[in-house]
Amino acid sequence: MRILVVHGPNLNMLGTREPGIYGTLTLDRINESLVALADELGCTISPFQSNSEGALVDAIQAAAGTCDGILINPAAYTHTSVAIRDALAAVALPVVEVHLSNIHRREEFRSHSFVAAVAVGQITGFGADSYLLGLRALFTHIEKGIVTKG
Amino acid sequence: MRILVVHGPNLNMLGTREPGIYGTLTLDRINESLVALADELGCTISPFQSNSEGALVDAIQAAAGTCDGILINPAAYTHTSVAIRDALAAVALPVVEVHLSNIHRREEFRSHSFVAAVAVGQITGFGADSYLLGLRALFTHIEKGIVTKG
Amino acid sequence: MRILVVHGPNLNMLGTREPGIYGTLTLDRINESLVALADELGCTISPFQSNSEGALVDAIQAAAGTCDGILINPAAYTHTSVAIRDALAAVALPVVEVHLSNIHRREEFRSHSFVAAVAVGQITGFGADSYLLGLRALFTHIEKGIVTKG
Amino acid sequence: MRILVVHGPNLNMLGTREPGIYGTLTLDRINESLVALADELGCTISPFQSNSEGALVDAIQAAAGTCDGILINPAAYTHTSVAIRDALAAVALPVVEVHLSNIHRREEFRSHSFVAAVAVGQITGFGADSYLLGLRALFTHIEKGIVTKG
Amino acid sequence: MRILVVHGPNLNMLGTREPGIYGTLTLDRINESLVALADELGCTISPFQSNSEGALVDAIQAAAGTCDGILINPAAYTHTSVAIRDALAAVALPVVEVHLSNIHRREEFRSHSFVAAVAVGQITGFGADSYLLGLRALFTHIEKGIVTKG
Amino acid sequence: MRILVVHGPNLNMLGTREPGIYGTLTLDRINESLVALADELGCTISPFQSNSEGALVDAIQAAAGTCDGILINPAAYTHTSVAIRDALAAVALPVVEVHLSNIHRREEFRSHSFVAAVAVGQITGFGADSYLLGLRALFTHIEKGIVTKG
Amino acid sequence: MRILVVHGPNLNMLGTREPGIYGTLTLDRINESLVALADELGCTISPFQSNSEGALVDAIQAAAGTCDGILINPAAYTHTSVAIRDALAAVALPVVEVHLSNIHRREEFRSHSFVAAVAVGQITGFGADSYLLGLRALFTHIEKGIVTKG
Amino acid sequence: MRILVVHGPNLNMLGTREPGIYGTLTLDRINESLVALADELGCTISPFQSNSEGALVDAIQAAAGTCDGILINPAAYTHTSVAIRDALAAVALPVVEVHLSNIHRREEFRSHSFVAAVAVGQITGFGADSYLLGLRALFTHIEKGIVTKG
Amino acid sequence: MRILVVHGPNLNMLGTREPGIYGTLTLDRINESLVALADELGCTISPFQSNSEGALVDAIQAAAGTCDGILINPAAYTHTSVAIRDALAAVALPVVEVHLSNIHRREEFRSHSFVAAVAVGQITGFGADSYLLGLRALFTHIEKGIVTKG
Amino acid sequence: MRILVVHGPNLNMLGTREPGIYGTLTLDRINESLVALADELGCTISPFQSNSEGALVDAIQAAAGTCDGILINPAAYTHTSVAIRDALAAVALPVVEVHLSNIHRREEFRSHSFVAAVAVGQITGFGADSYLLGLRALFTHIEKGIVTKG
Amino acid sequence: MRILVVHGPNLNMLGTREPGIYGTLTLDRINESLVALADELGCTISPFQSNSEGALVDAIQAAAGTCDGILINPAAYTHTSVAIRDALAAVALPVVEVHLSNIHRREEFRSHSFVAAVAVGQITGFGADSYLLGLRALFTHIEKGIVTKG
Amino acid sequence: MRILVVHGPNLNMLGTREPGIYGTLTLDRINESLVALADELGCTISPFQSNSEGALVDAIQAAAGTCDGILINPAAYTHTSVAIRDALAAVALPVVEVHLSNIHRREEFRSHSFVAAVAVGQITGFGADSYLLGLRALFTHIEKGIVTKG
Repeated sequence: MRILVVHGPNLNMLGTREPGIYGTLTLDRINESLVALADELGCTISPFQSNSEGALVDAIQAAAGTCDGILINPAAYTHTSVAIRDALAAVALPVVEVHLSNIHRREEFRSHSFVAAVAVGQITGFGADSYLLGLRALFTHIEKGIVTKG
Repeated sequence: MRILVVHGPNLNMLGTREPGIYGTLTLDRINESLVALADELGCTISPFQSNSEGALVDAIQAAAGTCDGILINPAAYTHTSVAIRDALAAVALPVVEVHLSNIHRREEFRSHSFVAAVAVGQITGFGADSYLLGLRALFTHIEKGIVTKG
Repeated sequence: MRILVVHGPNLNMLGTREPGIYGTLTLDRINESLVALADELGCTISPFQSNSEGALVDAIQAAAGTCDGILINPAAYTHTSVAIRDALAAVALPVVEVHLSNIHRREEFRSHSFVAAVAVGQITGFGADSYLLGLRALFTHIEKGIVTKG
Repeated sequence: MRILVVHGPNLNMLGTREPGIYGTLTLDRINESLVALADELGCTISPFQSNSEGALVDAIQAAAGTCDGILINPAAYTHTSVAIRDALAAVALPVVEVHLSNIHRREEFRSHSFVAAVAVGQITGFGADSYLLGLRALFTHIEKGIVTKG
Repeated sequence: MRILVVHGPNLNMLGTREPGIYGTLTLDRINESLVALADELGCTISPFQSNSEGALVDAIQAAAGTCDGILINPAAYTHTSVAIRDALAAVALPVVEVHLSNIHRREEFRSHSFVAAVAVGQITGFGADSYLLGLRALFTHIEKGIVTKG
Repeated sequence: MRILVVHGPNLNMLGTREPGIYGTLTLDRINESLVALADELGCTISPFQSNSEGALVDAIQAAAGTCDGILINPAAYTHTSVAIRDALAAVALPVVEVHLSNIHRREEFRSHSFVAAVAVGQITGFGADSYLLGLRALFTHIEKGIVTKG
Repeated sequence: MRILVVHGPNLNMLGTREPGIYGTLTLDRINESLVALADELGCTISPFQSNSEGALVDAIQAAAGTCDGILINPAAYTHTSVAIRDALAAVALPVVEVHLSNIHRREEFRSHSFVAAVAVGQITGFGADSYLLGLRALFTHIEKGIVTKG
Repeated sequence: MRILVVHGPNLNMLGTREPGIYGTLTLDRINESLVALADELGCTISPFQSNSEGALVDAIQAAAGTCDGILINPAAYTHTSVAIRDALAAVALPVVEVHLSNIHRREEFRSHSFVAAVAVGQITGFGADSYLLGLRALFTHIEKGIVTKG
Repeated sequence: MRILVVHGPNLNMLGTREPGIYGTLTLDRINESLVALADELGCTISPFQSNSEGALVDAIQAAAGTCDGILINPAAYTHTSVAIRDALAAVALPVVEVHLSNIHRREEFRSHSFVAAVAVGQITGFGADSYLLGLRALFTHIEKGIVTKG
Repeated sequence: MRILVVHGPNLNMLGTREPGIYGTLTLDRINESLVALADELGCTISPFQSNSEGALVDAIQAAAGTCDGILINPAAYTHTSVAIRDALAAVALPVVEVHLSNIHRREEFRSHSFVAAVAVGQITGFGADSYLLGLRALFTHIEKGIVTKG
Repeated sequence: MRILVVHGPNLNMLGTREPGIYGTLTLDRINESLVALADELGCTISPFQSNSEGALVDAIQAAAGTCDGILINPAAYTHTSVAIRDALAAVALPVVEVHLSNIHRREEFRSHSFVAAVAVGQITGFGADSYLLGLRALFTHIEKGIVTKG
Repeated sequence: MRILVVHGPNLNMLGTREPGIYGTLTLDRINESLVALADELGCTISPFQSNSEGALVDAIQAAAGTCDGILINPAAYTHTSVAIRDALAAVALPVVEVHLSNIHRREEFRSHSFVAAVAVGQITGFGADSYLLGLRALFTHIEKGIVTKG
């Protein structure tokens, strides 16, 4: 089982620069934790980060036929990208959406997700643990072979 | 570590009656899975279900001083109860909000949660696994002793 | 054929106290009229009134397996209760919604019904006769065995 | 007692053409059922159908002085016609509004009725039975000589 | 100078039926007053009333080339008819809009006029005098040959 | 009969400065026309202009007991002043609201009038003639001693 | 193959009167172009124009059983007529909606079409060519016998 | 004179648990202050607290015939309970609504009160003193026997 | 302790003119009652009334350094004046907002107060008693030296 | 005559992967059909596809001076890209907007197009034929040299 | 070149009273800085401050014929005054709008400016420097004699 | 001191192509003016333009540690890009937002800026001078070392 892990814009800055704001955990460390958990669960992950909406769409399209599911933190594009939503719908793979912060208690415009409509589920608010919980949830979902109904 | 697990209205019907709609997993079986995971993690859980908003508020208030965190599926009251939100805020314990279905892809009125504003995070869409992921997330959160900022 | 008749909050006050406002017809008299019509039609009714949302949810759940349909005047909970809506959807019995007054010509907030989405039909504005028309409509609907499409 | 029965646009197509969609019950058959019930109750009905808003306004105006009440299914004009509402208000006869389907569970724009504000009550969702229930309700209302307050 | 006077739906009922509501002044009397004022001012009027939106559009179209201006009380169609607005715009004659009641202090939906955007001005609230003031205003406007800018 | 004529902010600039925009008719000339019409009708007018909302409220209050009606062009305060509305309501004199331009075809925010709710009627779009029509309408209204119902 | 061509209100005025506004192309000329193209494609057309909403509904109903598709420019009724929408849905023929101007760049209220929800597609902004493109599109659609999914 | 004092959900937690948040004044102490003031004014109070909407409705209904007025802090139910509003309207006693904090400067959803529409007045923002001011206001209101008009 | 008492527009008319509407209590009598209560409490008051927003802002600014608190009935400016709100915020004195009527049960536009966001609390609906309750509340608030948190 | 044909995000996936969803027609085949039609009409086309908003803006800018018109299917960027709209406005070439599906009968957010405001016209709902109809419409528009007014 | 500098309500309090909130820079000092910059640029300024909307309108009107441009900080009236906007439009001088704070990141109601629609440009967020930047921008604008198009 | 100057989409077209629309000033010339002013002020600038949202995010991230401030004209992305806003917030440098036109007097959708919430201030409407004023404002802001509070 192979999982595409998609990190949206600005997530490359995690931990390396404003640790006071973003914590000291870098995106590399998050990816390492995901690899470790993937090993434990028995799957492999392919992490990808970009600040470009188009590049993220390209990566999602490329997952069709090569991956079994997508774990995505769309970051700022969560709220503005119909293109990413359409790409996820097109590849027709199970998607789990994660967020570091609880987007439902931040600014009003962050509470709407274009991605939610095409995702199995959403996990928000647990920092880097959101990714680990999300990988676990996606793995279980694929294993069960269940198509969750919204 | 002791966790109050709160099940909102109509969740008592899970699995026992319309299995075609709600699946065959009963609330008792979900609680058993939670007990098993709690054992594995090293904590205990106190499950509580009610169809009454007032009884749920009573149970949340009673957790102050006796529990270390609250795992809650507020079900229909997610969208209408300011009283449950205020009770959760009053006891000042870490809260994780879970939902069986992905509330962000159902009717418009189900996408707003009064509870989200007082919860560490929200997990939606993974069926009974939402509870297990939520317990795991809450346990980790309490262990780290971190107050997550929204 | 057995019909659960659900009366929502404040309907217990009908006729006994402010006759100038609510008329002189008590809830007992409405229930008697319903019993008489049920006899005529050839069915039995089980009336239930409560001011508590949770108790109403309990009563609706209990109708599963024991009743063939639900006649409900959700009163004030019409406009605020997702829990009652979910309970009605869960028991999957035919539901007819009635109101004493024409809720579509009162305050704006009274024109929206959470229950309508799970009801066969709605009858409003005929005072106590709304109940009698509703029982007749529900009886016919069940007899025909038709699942009305919204 | 004489009742004007007003059928709005497209109701002339009932049952004659797309039975898969509209059922096999024609408007003539509905009118026959209404005549039968009117006989039973002791009143007469004058059915009128038109696809033209202006012709419906004309018919309603003509009811002043010749009819004792109006049973109306405004169909599509329910949601757009202020002229029909004003005509009903002008003739000052008791009005009962009926709909074949439950308009409160269809598209959002169908949940608002301009007619409701000038009707005694509204009956929706019972197919052709909505008319029969409506005639019964209107007959009782006129007999009681009660002006229902909204 | 010839003025088309357009009376919208239900205005034919003025004074003849519910004098308690609509006063005792009939539409014929209003037209007579308009004829008298037209004589005084030195112009002629062509009154037209219909309950049908399409007939009103026909009448407005026919004014092109035969009339110098249009005095219109669109009544209920004020708030719903884009077709009348488009007809008025197409004939490109000066239009004055009048209303018996002050539409800006009635129900919210009556405060918007589709006709206002294509009219020189609007006069509301003076009963039958609204017509007389409107004729006077339209006559002066045409005499001056001024195209008022909104 | 004495009529207070109230001119709102910026109307003192009429005709004296940007004739290309405001025309060449000064406020003095408008007042002279009103005096001439008042003589013809048999009443007297007291014109008052101010750019200050408070001064306008003072003037309206002073009309109680000394004037029989108020002709007002509230100009910009039409859309923002609850104080002028309340003053008009307090003195309980008949009010006619006039506007030079047709406020219903300008920017959206100009279509709402706080004054309309306390005025007999509104006349908009006829330039300086709006005042003359308004005086005529107010004079007739007072003479008839009719309290127009909205 | 026979196509009903429906022209909505005010389209009878095209080209005959205000050529400066509407161009010099009359509706007759548009119909001639459509006949020419129909000949070329191998089908026949039945054009119909009315300013009356009810007459348009009648014409659409009459197409059931006699025509294979409907090409419609609903003009002003695009934005207000639920009755035309319901008639189109009732006859269950393929519908193509056309507009002379690009309704999506005009007044806000013109951007919503009640007809769009029951049409195969919409063509706007190409003047009389919108009709020719629409006929071509409808012809191809019927030939392919494809039910396009929205 | 007897006054029912109704305390809504979560108010039982005042002062006993999170004194940093809720202050050190318990609900018992507030009731004692109210008793003292009631003695001084010459009336008696009956305090009641519940977390259950239904129980609060029951208590309000029971006040009919036994109490002369109701002092209520509906807490979280202020913003969500139509049932409490209807109960207050049904018993037809004078009602004064109080809040510890100034609800008009908190979250947007807390600025709307369903209770306000059936209350004489509202006092917000003075902590426990809101109750004392409210009792004083209600006492004076009842003594004067004035029905305040909104 | 010195309290500035600010009366907004039209309050100078209280009791002197339309006693049927405003009661017979004049503003002078309200000020006398306030002086009497101030004597009893042990403070002095400085009443000020104006119909001018600017003059009210001037008076509020002048209170800085000379008064210990502000009791204000902003009347119509409650709903429209950001300038008064900013002046109150600038002088940084404790503010209590009062209203004669219950603004939360009147027209929709009267339910929003720009002043509430900078006031300790709000008292509405008790007629002239609102002022007395407000003075009492403000006095207590200042004595306690508590900065109430919203 | 040279036409730039712009294909927005995810259109590269047409036909190659989920034929059940997207049909078996690939983007290459659509381009071939367009080339064939261009040959027939007597013009040439330059197709361009990208998933990147910036790359699409670049391509549109490059059309200035080299192409005579733009045929664009902005896909997901239709609803979110002000940048593409501004680029189209900047190059000031005639633009025709096409969509495979009828965007006016899908999710609400898909009914608004930022591109429509700068396009001659819009063609939606005819699958790959939308492109062919669009090319034909654009070709005719350029040939006529008409600037269509919205 | 002469520039009118308009300071809106509460700006007279700058620096003299709550330096912790408003800084220590007084309005006199800001005016001195503006004089110094005016000297450097080669123009003169006429500063004016008032808390009264009417007085500000008077001052703006007086600038016609005596000044070449207006630099205005409308403060609280930015969001509520149509009268100031209309005065600025009437005098037809170039206007530059400045604000001390960045109004686009404060309360929602502060993000809308009635003045923006009649101003060349807007400068917000640079404290007293906003005035200096604004004077510089206005000076350059007038010198260039360019009418900036919005 | 080093300033990153960010030019958003379509600004590369300035002056080179449609001088009638965009003027004759190219982006190169604007950058030259900025360099000249930077020399005068004593700082250096690094200009960057891209049509790609992702590339702009990359450039902003790269400014962390190398620049002291950011001068940005986000152009079309002002209204749609949460990613640019988040990048600006992440690098935590002072930001000044500029626009060539006054965005507050154009289409409604252009009046909202996602960037404003993370900028010191905003300058709009002065054409190329907006950049020069912005650089001056940013330079002064950094020199003062003040963190402006919104």
